[in-house]
Amino acid sequence: MELKAAADRLFPADAGVRRLAAELYAAVADAPIVSPHGHVDPRLLLDDDPFADPAALLVTPDHYVLRLLHAHGVPLDALGRGPAGSSAPRDVWRAFASHWHAFAATPVRVWLEDTLQNVVGLDRHPSAGNADEQFDAIAAWIADPASRPRRLYERFRIEVLATTDDPADDLAAHRALAADPSWHGRVIPTFRPDRYLDPSAPGWRQALDDLTAASGIETGTHAGLIAALEDRRAFFRACGATSTDTGVVEAWAVRAEPAELERIHAAARAGDVPASDAAAYRAHMLWELARMSSEDGLVMQLHPGVLRNHHAPTLQRFGPDTGHDLPLPTAYSVPLRELLRDFGTHPSFRMVLFTVDETAFSREIAPLAGFYPSVFAGAPWWFLDSPDGIRRYREAVTDSAGFGKTSGFIDDTRAFLSIPARHDVARRMDAGWLATLVATGRLPEAEAHAIAADLVGPLPRRVFRLDA
Amino acid sequence: MELKAAADRLFPADAGVRRLAAELYAAVADAPIVSPHGHVDPRLLLDDDPFADPAALLVTPDHYVLRLLHAHGVPLDALGRGPAGSSAPRDVWRAFASHWHAFAATPVRVWLEDTLQNVVGLDRHPSAGNADEQFDAIAAWIADPASRPRRLYERFRIEVLATTDDPADDLAAHRALAADPSWHGRVIPTFRPDRYLDPSAPGWRQALDDLTAASGIETGTHAGLIAALEDRRAFFRACGATSTDTGVVEAWAVRAEPAELERIHAAARAGDVPASDAAAYRAHMLWELARMSSEDGLVMQLHPGVLRNHHAPTLQRFGPDTGHDLPLPTAYSVPLRELLRDFGTHPSFRMVLFTVDETAFSREIAPLAGFYPSVFAGAPWWFLDSPDGIRRYREAVTDSAGFGKTSGFIDDTRAFLSIPARHDVARRMDAGWLATLVATGRLPEAEAHAIAADLVGPLPRRVFRLDA
Amino acid sequence: MELKAAADRLFPADAGVRRLAAELYAAVADAPIVSPHGHVDPRLLLDDDPFADPAALLVTPDHYVLRLLHAHGVPLDALGRGPAGSSAPRDVWRAFASHWHAFAATPVRVWLEDTLQNVVGLDRHPSAGNADEQFDAIAAWIADPASRPRRLYERFRIEVLATTDDPADDLAAHRALAADPSWHGRVIPTFRPDRYLDPSAPGWRQALDDLTAASGIETGTHAGLIAALEDRRAFFRACGATSTDTGVVEAWAVRAEPAELERIHAAARAGDVPASDAAAYRAHMLWELARMSSEDGLVMQLHPGVLRNHHAPTLQRFGPDTGHDLPLPTAYSVPLRELLRDFGTHPSFRMVLFTVDETAFSREIAPLAGFYPSVFAGAPWWFLDSPDGIRRYREAVTDSAGFGKTSGFIDDTRAFLSIPARHDVARRMDAGWLATLVATGRLPEAEAHAIAADLVGPLPRRVFRLDA
Repeated sequence: MELKAAADRLFPADAGVRRLAAELYAAVADAPIVSPHGHVDPRLLLDDDPFADPAALLVTPDHYVLRLLHAHGVPLDALGRGPAGSSAPRDVWRAFASHWHAFAATPVRVWLEDTLQNVVGLDRHPSAGNADEQFDAIAAWIADPASRPRRLYERFRIEVLATTDDPADDLAAHRALAADPSWHGRVIPTFRPDRYLDPSAPGWRQALDDLTAASGIETGTHAGLIAALEDRRAFFRACGATSTDTGVVEAWAVRAEPAELERIHAAARAGDVPASDAAAYRAHMLWELARMSSEDGLVMQLHPGVLRNHHAPTLQRFGPDTGHDLPLPTAYSVPLRELLRDFGTHPSFRMVLFTVDETAFSREIAPLAGFYPSVFAGAPWWFLDSPDGIRRYREAVTDSAGFGKTSGFIDDTRAFLSIPARHDVARRMDAGWLATLVATGRLPEAEAHAIAADLVGPLPRRVFRLDA
Repeated sequence: MELKAAADRLFPADAGVRRLAAELYAAVADAPIVSPHGHVDPRLLLDDDPFADPAALLVTPDHYVLRLLHAHGVPLDALGRGPAGSSAPRDVWRAFASHWHAFAATPVRVWLEDTLQNVVGLDRHPSAGNADEQFDAIAAWIADPASRPRRLYERFRIEVLATTDDPADDLAAHRALAADPSWHGRVIPTFRPDRYLDPSAPGWRQALDDLTAASGIETGTHAGLIAALEDRRAFFRACGATSTDTGVVEAWAVRAEPAELERIHAAARAGDVPASDAAAYRAHMLWELARMSSEDGLVMQLHPGVLRNHHAPTLQRFGPDTGHDLPLPTAYSVPLRELLRDFGTHPSFRMVLFTVDETAFSREIAPLAGFYPSVFAGAPWWFLDSPDGIRRYREAVTDSAGFGKTSGFIDDTRAFLSIPARHDVARRMDAGWLATLVATGRLPEAEAHAIAADLVGPLPRRVFRLDA
Repeated sequence: MELKAAADRLFPADAGVRRLAAELYAAVADAPIVSPHGHVDPRLLLDDDPFADPAALLVTPDHYVLRLLHAHGVPLDALGRGPAGSSAPRDVWRAFASHWHAFAATPVRVWLEDTLQNVVGLDRHPSAGNADEQFDAIAAWIADPASRPRRLYERFRIEVLATTDDPADDLAAHRALAADPSWHGRVIPTFRPDRYLDPSAPGWRQALDDLTAASGIETGTHAGLIAALEDRRAFFRACGATSTDTGVVEAWAVRAEPAELERIHAAARAGDVPASDAAAYRAHMLWELARMSSEDGLVMQLHPGVLRNHHAPTLQRFGPDTGHDLPLPTAYSVPLRELLRDFGTHPSFRMVLFTVDETAFSREIAPLAGFYPSVFAGAPWWFLDSPDGIRRYREAVTDSAGFGKTSGFIDDTRAFLSIPARHDVARRMDAGWLATLVATGRLPEAEAHAIAADLVGPLPRRVFRLDA
């Protein structure tokens, strides 16, 4: 089947609304991309090597793609995961291409179509029949110097790209990039301290050792851990970071007493921490991260409500990020009450709340963002990062939070090639929503144009303090 | 920008559906307003004084307006809250007008546009540039005798307006109004016993003293409290009340033993009530309120699921109703099971269930209203009282409860000027939903017209027993 | 009012989308009906007797109809429930017809209109005025040999009809039907072991005795119960069953130790089982059912989250299935984690997850179906089995699960006459959704046609292993 993305795709069906959406979209379609949250490896742009092969480019590392293929019976071994060399790239591509129907009507299909047609330049849908031919075509495209990461960064009109980094990371790639006179882009780190928050997690003690090594500050005590994190935040800020990111199962943020924290810290170092102590420690750490943000101004992103690695056998065999992280019912207003009591109106504090439980948009996130000056409703994320998810997000948050208290789109991706496609989907859906508001008399057309322009650049730059 | 509310605003975008919606709306657009639930002070109509000033009229008392301005960084001091005189009305209006963009696409904007254009008679959107000029224009409008509350009551075609009143209230204003030969409207009280339900609340003992003073019945015992409440209900009924209203955090209604209740009552009087006792007492009180309703026929409105005063520092400094009451996940079917076992099919009992957790509409409220003759699905309320909220409400409740088991619109407002705008939004959205049902072959057009007419008058009069 | 179902009913309002929906629908409108889950009594088709009377045909046994009439104040006695003979069929029909407005815009109305017009051949909406006339007309229709169940089975183009059956059932009706040379349809049993799962349920000991009688296997021990269930599954399979069905309040499935299970089993036989033991036993039984499915290949349907018989007085007087079973908030990912750890990637295991809590579609069910090859997102069920419910289902599950990991429509009905109407609604709504996807550039038209065709036959046959 011919691969031909419609020029007016994703706009509302009504002709009048569609025309208006197209106009709103046209004015922002080519605006530079501000990407304040994602998972691209900075070395990709530092090294600027060609991509490895079509499977490694488009299939194997993308957990959105993996999970749907797996759901349709393709084992992860056949997709390039598991013991190295267990599947040749060409075989991976064949498996992918012959299951193209599995993606029908999903956001993955929308992104892939846009990428394959408009970035890679294919003209047919993948299929079992054309798998080899397309594999070769993509390999040839990869070999073209114009397909190197830096050239694509420019072609994609990326203005700023935030990565996600461990506090113990030396940010060597970021520093080298910034020092490279031939590089004119902007790649900034994001401080992600997840490994240090849970004293009952298997890797916690190792993480503390890593942090000590990176900071030169002893982390044998809770006070030491806090000091070391503060030290690394300063380093991250010096390297261009403007925000932090934290993923937690539950958003509880409750201050604990220093003595209590030291007691738990010491017990956890000794490998013995009861669940209730670990929970109290984690809740305090979330509060501390807010306290630090109120002092250093790093924007605090919070992603609660994900149950990681649901299927233990797959985790054991294939590692994490293999498609079985799952959403949980998620609360915000009650667990974050103490944190917001202490920092919610602090002028330096800023918090972006994300969710994969969409019931929270109208019930908790928008009402919080509609009162606290520090709180912003994060863009729909992960399972909700789809045309319909974006529409439902706007319908759910606009009533209580308007546009100005939303975060602007974040692509959250490790699939470098999909960045423009993802931003394009958001721009189209926002244009459609704005057009609907105009068509139903809820927004003057001039104001809709101003908002559309704000959403793709000025707003995320303000929210994430990218101009500071 | 010109202020020009579109005649066909809020109708569906499709031309055919819109035409039909416009027809359905036209037939009810000017119907009298039945307002069975709200928070207007009856003294407004008794005294019939001119409104104080533009800020006091449109900004300072409206927590919908305050919360969004606060979210955009305007401190409440600058909006007329806090120590008296801390901000001049003109400065409040300037702050409001210069943040007009904060309301873009929110329901607050829809109400304000309608009010400013069609009630006050302005012709431009508020802005920093025209703030002084509009302030003066509104002040002039206020000074016009035609802008007095009673004249507006008539102009708004209000047929009945229910207020919200404490059981200890002497309803002097209601009685004086009713006795005033120059007054031809209908303002009725609503019995709101919230202060008497929770023996662990700080004001409970004072409330009991107030109730004793009002009723002449000793409330030192639980039995006395019940008797005093029953006495006041009779008084409220004599003053025209047809319903009660109760706001609770959780909807548990479970009967307790008299001895147990007396024990808790006595302990609470002595200032010592454990949380579990307080919860049991509250749950029993909700059951008692239903029992009383089954006997005296007052319609029982229930508003569970709001966490009041989320931000303690703002409560301390500015008091309640300052924009940080927030929705909680809310359950109905399980907590109300015992109450409905005892009164759900009682011919005199009637209960209207409201929610700010919209997931409850299709999962709990509509299924309950679709079985129990006594239960009605309350209109979308507070955070959900918006064009999209109303649409989602209809989509969620019609399947299981149709139209006849819904409450009809309630405006729930303390902003007198916004009453017509709010009812107009509901009429438009219901017309659009009915038009969609006709256009998709789910409802004959004649039946849609009959339902539209029923929704704005006969239905709420039946549900709230206003004709009894 | 004339009864005239619009040919393009339920399609989206936009003319272009509607045209496309009509084309997609036309290609599947007359496709045979695959009904892998329902509650029709197999004796209906074995005996092939005429239906009793209009009330018994369309009103009395249908809890969707009963509940809305009851909600509008019609007592169940007046609808043919309660002591036999308490209401004449004609009086029941009069009560129903005079409350026709109660069904306005509900799915019940859609089904009834289609049935009355297209199956029974009426040409007016029921009303108080035509109740007697329509009662007689329906009675005459019933008397027509063409209205016998087997003739209707053919007329409805039913290809396969699954019933729901107790493991102790001898399936005599199924076997007799299969052996009847004059019968050419396919009616298959479904294994529903609910009575055997909860050792604290009043009927559990009787159920075990029944199972022993049916299987000849002693159920005095837990091991015996398991063996007896396995024996009956084999019998059901031999009689054509391809799936099981289980309704639970919560979906917990957690393995317990044999000794523990025997202890609880013995205590429960003695009538003494604490709630926590009963919960552990139930959770283990759900795990066992999955284990059995992984071994014998029967597809496991799971329906959690229903609170049965909410109104105790109605249960006492009128028995179960009288309209007051109600949805509960329902979780899947956490409670099913152990079950899916053990069987989620087992090649023989298959599980279809249903819900009446629609928040679970995008948050839990679609993400599970989008990773586990064994999991399928069940069609919207019961309270959600409506035009809008189906649309919201597709919008919520397609992102994470596409079409291929959904179950295909199931009618779940005991109202034989409503089967074609229910499948027709699903076909129309799916055609509308596919048309919307095409119109918004998310799906090529050819692929939409292929999916529409797949959904009505091949897909449910694959999912429910009907061709095995």
